[in-house]
Amino acid sequence: MNITIRPATPDDISGIYALVKELAEYEHAAHEVTATEELYHQCLEDGTFMCIVADIDGQIVGICIYYMTFSTWKGKMLYLEDFVVRQSHRQHGIGQLLFDSYLATAKSQGCALAKWQVLDWNEPAIKFYEKNGAIIEKEWWNGKIIF
Amino acid sequence: MNITIRPATPDDISGIYALVKELAEYEHAAHEVTATEELYHQCLEDGTFMCIVADIDGQIVGICIYYMTFSTWKGKMLYLEDFVVRQSHRQHGIGQLLFDSYLATAKSQGCALAKWQVLDWNEPAIKFYEKNGAIIEKEWWNGKIIF
Repeated sequence: MNITIRPATPDDISGIYALVKELAEYEHAAHEVTATEELYHQCLEDGTFMCIVADIDGQIVGICIYYMTFSTWKGKMLYLEDFVVRQSHRQHGIGQLLFDSYLATAKSQGCALAKWQVLDWNEPAIKFYEKNGAIIEKEWWNGKIIF
Repeated sequence: MNITIRPATPDDISGIYALVKELAEYEHAAHEVTATEELYHQCLEDGTFMCIVADIDGQIVGICIYYMTFSTWKGKMLYLEDFVVRQSHRQHGIGQLLFDSYLATAKSQGCALAKWQVLDWNEPAIKFYEKNGAIIEKEWWNGKIIF
């Protein structure tokens, strides 16, 4: 396998979008994806989000979608919005390469911390994060209003 | 009371920073605040975060700190990082004015949703958000790595 870990370009959007939908299916929520591929193009181009991809011979098999945020307690915080490796390509260390690249990006941008969320039933993901030295917080709930 | 709800300017930073520390104390975590007031200045100026303040005669009595993010499912998402009204000024509707202004900002910026977090034991806040039609999600845990 010849894997390249690199920043996403607009040409990667269709591959990225396909993986987002794959993760939503794994999370039993495929019907919740209402953002369009066109919106992904706009938001990658205007910097609303950034993305690191795992590319095998031109095929996108893994993604980290992230953006800069601010922790009122710690300062600059790189937030990992979505992190997925294609089901057929797991157990080869691709996730670790992507996650390492995401953490390196956070450090290089002067962040005090990296943050993300994980579903409470997603044991493989929780184990992965704990293996990477993450703190898992269980006492925060999400609030949201959809317009 | 003569309340003004308005975007923050650099002159408001010391008042904003004092309220962040007040909320951290309420959340039993004052010792966790390591971001400096100087960093707040930089990050407001470079757009890492934005802030709406409630101003009474030049005194900052409430804040909404937020930034633009991206939901892979819904699209543009305005994230409310910190929302606090000074203890001595609660029960006067100032929080509602701030929250309304935050939601109006999200809509005016083309967001598909507004999102934030609340501690599971913070009943007054949870009731406030539910009264405002929010969905409260309890199945997500936070992961974080502090550098």
